[in-house]
Amino acid sequence: MNHPNCPLCHPQNEEVLLQTEHLRVIAVDNEPNAPALCRVIWQDHIAEMTDLPIEQRNEIMDMVYRVEAAMRRVLKPTKINLASFGNFVPHLHWHVIARFQNDANFPAAIWAAAERNAEVVLPDNWKEQVKRQLTEAA
Amino acid sequence: MNHPNCPLCHPQNEEVLLQTEHLRVIAVDNEPNAPALCRVIWQDHIAEMTDLPIEQRNEIMDMVYRVEAAMRRVLKPTKINLASFGNFVPHLHWHVIARFQNDANFPAAIWAAAERNAEVVLPDNWKEQVKRQLTEAA
Repeated sequence: MNHPNCPLCHPQNEEVLLQTEHLRVIAVDNEPNAPALCRVIWQDHIAEMTDLPIEQRNEIMDMVYRVEAAMRRVLKPTKINLASFGNFVPHLHWHVIARFQNDANFPAAIWAAAERNAEVVLPDNWKEQVKRQLTEAA
Repeated sequence: MNHPNCPLCHPQNEEVLLQTEHLRVIAVDNEPNAPALCRVIWQDHIAEMTDLPIEQRNEIMDMVYRVEAAMRRVLKPTKINLASFGNFVPHLHWHVIARFQNDANFPAAIWAAAERNAEVVLPDNWKEQVKRQLTEAA
């Protein structure tokens, strides 16, 4: 399934950390308030988790957990935030966000107004490290 | 596990739709921008999905999907939003939110600043209907 106007069906300039038959993991820099954000994107253009059969729900969530585990190991965040919205782009994708007490919004959601200037310092190569963890765990 | 200062370990005035050995589903009215919101709360005081063994990750997600399916049937939302944050209360809980094009924030997240006055009209008894769906599917 391939939707002609969907930016997740026709990705550009994505930084792909892992790709499988049914999904891909990308690292994202375009959410200004997110200190460290990966997305797990289902390949087919479906909108809701309950549009998938149970085996495929488990498949995408298992990858969300792998990304969560890798980000916890690499980034030691205060908290992991998981979210699947799709209000702008109704193509199933999960946000996996590492949150820190000194990020711009903590403890509010990253989509709330920023409360401070973020002072989070991440390893320069965190995406590379997460990618390696995902590849090794494959 | 029971944390002395955790409001989810010591709930008050919750509207419980379903309770099982390991989790409970509640309907929530205290998120001003959420038109219709249920929470799936793990009973034990753990913080992250990857703190649970895989069977229990599947157990809580299966209930999230049941709530999503029930809310879709009852409310016919534009989109379902799923989120697990725990920044304020690091006790595992999922938000299952029915979103509508005429709610206060759509397509932004409900935690963003409201963009309009919500004009969503829901069935008065939607919680009762969701509760019935959950009970019948048990």
